[in-house]
Amino acid sequence: MGVHEHKDLLEKLGVDVPRHAKMMEMGFESYKNQFMSQENRPEAMKYFNWFMSEMQGQRIAEINKLRENKKPAIGAFCIFVPEELIVAAGGACFGLCGGSPATIADAETELPRNICPLIKSAHGFKLQKTCAYTQSSDFIYGETTCEAKKKTWEILGKHHPVKVMNIPHMKREKDLKLWKEELVEFKEHLEEITEEKLSLEQMKEGVKIVNAKREALQRLDRLRSMNPDIIPISGKDGLFITQMGFLDDPIRYTQKVNELCDELEKRVEDKISVFEKQTPRLMVLGTPFAPPNWKLHTAVETSGGAIVNEESCIGHRYYKDNVDLDNVQDEDTLMQKLLDKYSAVDCACFTPNAPRIDKVLKMYKDRKLDGVIYYTLSFCHTYNVEAHLVTQALENEGIPCLVIESDYSPEDAGQIKTRVEAFLESISFKNKAKQFKQNQEK
Amino acid sequence: MGVHEHKDLLEKLGVDVPRHAKMMEMGFESYKNQFMSQENRPEAMKYFNWFMSEMQGQRIAEINKLRENKKPAIGAFCIFVPEELIVAAGGACFGLCGGSPATIADAETELPRNICPLIKSAHGFKLQKTCAYTQSSDFIYGETTCEAKKKTWEILGKHHPVKVMNIPHMKREKDLKLWKEELVEFKEHLEEITEEKLSLEQMKEGVKIVNAKREALQRLDRLRSMNPDIIPISGKDGLFITQMGFLDDPIRYTQKVNELCDELEKRVEDKISVFEKQTPRLMVLGTPFAPPNWKLHTAVETSGGAIVNEESCIGHRYYKDNVDLDNVQDEDTLMQKLLDKYSAVDCACFTPNAPRIDKVLKMYKDRKLDGVIYYTLSFCHTYNVEAHLVTQALENEGIPCLVIESDYSPEDAGQIKTRVEAFLESISFKNKAKQFKQNQEK
Ligand code: SF4
Ligand code: SF4
Ligand code: SF4
Ligand code: SF4
Repeated sequence: MGVHEHKDLLEKLGVDVPRHAKMMEMGFESYKNQFMSQENRPEAMKYFNWFMSEMQGQRIAEINKLRENKKPAIGAFCIFVPEELIVAAGGACFGLCGGSPATIADAETELPRNICPLIKSAHGFKLQKTCAYTQSSDFIYGETTCEAKKKTWEILGKHHPVKVMNIPHMKREKDLKLWKEELVEFKEHLEEITEEKLSLEQMKEGVKIVNAKREALQRLDRLRSMNPDIIPISGKDGLFITQMGFLDDPIRYTQKVNELCDELEKRVEDKISVFEKQTPRLMVLGTPFAPPNWKLHTAVETSGGAIVNEESCIGHRYYKDNVDLDNVQDEDTLMQKLLDKYSAVDCACFTPNAPRIDKVLKMYKDRKLDGVIYYTLSFCHTYNVEAHLVTQALENEGIPCLVIESDYSPEDAGQIKTRVEAFLESISFKNKAKQFKQNQEK
Repeated sequence: MGVHEHKDLLEKLGVDVPRHAKMMEMGFESYKNQFMSQENRPEAMKYFNWFMSEMQGQRIAEINKLRENKKPAIGAFCIFVPEELIVAAGGACFGLCGGSPATIADAETELPRNICPLIKSAHGFKLQKTCAYTQSSDFIYGETTCEAKKKTWEILGKHHPVKVMNIPHMKREKDLKLWKEELVEFKEHLEEITEEKLSLEQMKEGVKIVNAKREALQRLDRLRSMNPDIIPISGKDGLFITQMGFLDDPIRYTQKVNELCDELEKRVEDKISVFEKQTPRLMVLGTPFAPPNWKLHTAVETSGGAIVNEESCIGHRYYKDNVDLDNVQDEDTLMQKLLDKYSAVDCACFTPNAPRIDKVLKMYKDRKLDGVIYYTLSFCHTYNVEAHLVTQALENEGIPCLVIESDYSPEDAGQIKTRVEAFLESISFKNKAKQFKQNQEK
C-alpha cells in the first residue's frame, strides 16, 4: 500500500506513522472482506480498489504537491463548504468526517460521550494524528450547522487551525443574505492562502469541474435506482464510490465514475444484475455515512435487500443540484448562483425543512422502491427529531419504513441485522400479496 | 388552591382540568415538603408561597384578562425573547420550559428519547394540556438557539401557534445585524396582536419595568453570595424566586423581591444565616433549572453545602445586564440597545464563547466561593461540549469543580447526592488544610 512509500511525507505532516500504517492495514483488510469478496463486481471498481489502497498514500502526496505551490488544502465536515471555490483556486477540498470507532476513545478525553460519533471520530483522528488528510489541511473549515460540530471547533482549534462559517438555520431572505456574505468571506480566506485574487474565470472553471462530478454521480444514481429489475452494482459499492468523491481529485474521479457508468449501462442493456430478481430495493434517508461506516449497507445486503440510493449528504443531497452558470457575467451573480445551489440543500439543520419531505416522497415514487430506512447517527438531534414528520409522511403514503439509530460500535450490528431481516421479510410478504391480488384481478 | 376557583377559565383554555388539578396538587405537596419545611425562612417568602399556590390559578386569570383587552400573551423558551417589548405592549411574557418528569412519556410519542428533558417536558405539557400558561399563549415564540428546540417547533406547530426567531450562532457584525432585524420583526408580530403600533415611549417604559426586575434580582444575588459568612436565604429559595420571575407580573414581582431583599439586608446586619458557619458556598454553572427541577439544590443543601448563585439562564445570565436607556431618542437606537444587552448573553449556543469563561472566573473570585458545580441537562450538546474548556479553565485556577449531567428522572438522585457529598467533603478538607497552614504561618 501507498502508505509505506510515503513515509517521509507522512512524518513531515506529523502523522503518527506506525499507528497510521496499522490502521490503514486494518481498514484495507476490512475493505477486502466486505467489498472485494462481492461477486460479479463491475470491472471498473478496480480503480476504486486502487484508490482505497492509495487514499492515505498517493492522494496525500498529490495534495501536498498542490500545497507546495501555495494551493489551498481545506478539510471540511459539511457539503456547505463550497468546494467549487477551492477547486477554482487550484486546491483540494476533502471531507474529514470520521466513520471509525477506533478513534472514539481518544476523542472522549475531550468530548462528551453522548454526541454524534461522526465528529468524535474525526476529533479522535486529530488527537491520534492518524489521518493524513487532517494533517494536510491548511485549515479545517467548520460551520455552525450542528451543535456537536460547532462547539467541537473550539476544542479542535487547540490542535489545528480552524475557521468557521455561519450557516443560518432558516432560509428567509435576510438569512440568505448573511449566507451569501459567508461565501464571499470564504473566498477571501482562500485568497489569503494563494496570495492572489480568484478571477471570475477561475471560479467558473471550478464550478464546471464540480458540476461534472455531480453529474457523474447523478448518472450513477440513475443506474443504481431507476431500473426496477436490474441493479447493476451493489449499494455498498455505490456508497463507497460516493464516499471516495470527498477525497479524490475531482477531474480524475469524474472520469472514473463515468467509465464505471458506461459499464453499468452495458449491464442494464444486458440485464446483468448483482441481486436476484425481486430483491427489495431500499432507499436510506438521514445522516451521512462517513467511511469506513458500512455497517447498515452490509446488514441490508447480506440479508436479501439492496440499497439503491442514499438520500444523505454522502449521497443524493450532495449531488442533487448543480450550480447554474448561464448568464454569469460577474462575481456577485456567481456568488448568488452558488447560494441558490447551497440553499437548496435540505439539511435537517434548517427550520422549517418541509421540502425534504416532498423530495423524499418523489424520490421514492420515481424509483419505484420497496421501502425506506431512516438512519440517524446517535445523538444527531436534527435528523432524529425530523424523523417524526418524515416517517409520518411516509406512513400516510403507506410506504414501509424502518428507523435505525446507531453509532460506530460493532455491538449493535447483530440487532440491526435482525431488525433489517424482519423488515425485508415484511416487504417481501407485502409484495407477494400485491402480486397475488394483481394476478387475481387479471 | 387557586386552580379550583378558575375551573371555568381553565376549561375554556382547553386545559385537561382534572389531570391539571392533580398535577398541581402533587406539585404543591412537593413544594411544601422541600421548601416550606426549611427552617428559619425569611418572612417575605410568604408571597412566593402564595404565588406557588396561585401560579396556575390567579396568575392565569390575570394573563387572560390582558388577552381580553388584546394584549399579547407570549410563551417563550429562551431569555432571548425580548420580554421588554411584550411588557411594553401591555402583555405578559412567560417561560414555558418544562422541569417535570410527569410529561416526558407523552412527549416521547413524538420526540426522540435522547434529547434534553427541558423541551420534552414542555412538549409533553402541550400534548397533555396540563399547563395553563401554554394554553394561554397567543403564540409560542421559539428560537433557533438549540437543535432540540429548533426542530421541536415544527412538531409543536401541529398543536399550537408557533413563531420562530433566528438567533445567529456567532457574534460578528453581520450576525448582529441579522439579529437586530429579528428584534424588529418580533415587535411587528406583537403589533399584529394589539393592532396598534408600539410607541417609543411604551418601549422605554417596558424596558424600565424589566430593568427594575433585573436590578431586584441582582440585589438578591449580592445578598445571597457576597457576604462570605452570612447566607441569609437558602439556595433553593433563591432558585425558586428566580424561577417565578418567569411567570409572575413583573411589577408586583419586582416589589416583592425588593421587600425580600430588605429583610435579607437586615439579616446580614444581624448576622442571621440559614446555614452553619463554614458551609461550603457553591456556584452552579450550566443549563437552566426549570421548575419543579430542584433536584440538585436539594441534594446540595441536604448534604451540608449551600448554593449561592446560579450562573444559568434561570439565574445570573438572565439578570446580569440591563438595557441602557441613556440618550435613546428613536426606535432604531432602542433596538440597538436591546441588541447590545441580548448579544452580551454568553449562551453556549455561540461560537466562540470565551467571555463566559472570564466571567465565571470573575464571579467565583468576587464571591469568594468554595467550589463550582457544572450542571448540564442530558443531551444538551452545547453546554456539554463547552464544559471541557470551562472546567479546564477552572482547573488551571485550582478551583474545585464537580460535573453533573442529569435529566428529570428521580433515579439518579441518590447517585448525585453521593457525588455531591464526596465533593463537599473534599472542599471542607481543603479549606481546613488551608486554615491550618494560615494558622501555622501566623
Ligand atoms: S447533514 Fe447537514 S450538516 Fe451534515 S454534511 Fe449534510 S448539510 Fe452539512
Ligand atoms: S450527523 Fe448530525 S450530529 Fe453528526 S455531525 Fe452530522 S449534523 Fe452533526
Ligand atoms: S441557555 Fe441559551 S438557549 Fe437556553 S435560555 Fe439561556 S440563552 Fe436561551
Ligand atoms: S438545556 Fe440545552 S438542549 Fe435543553 S433547551 Fe436549553 S439549550 Fe436546548
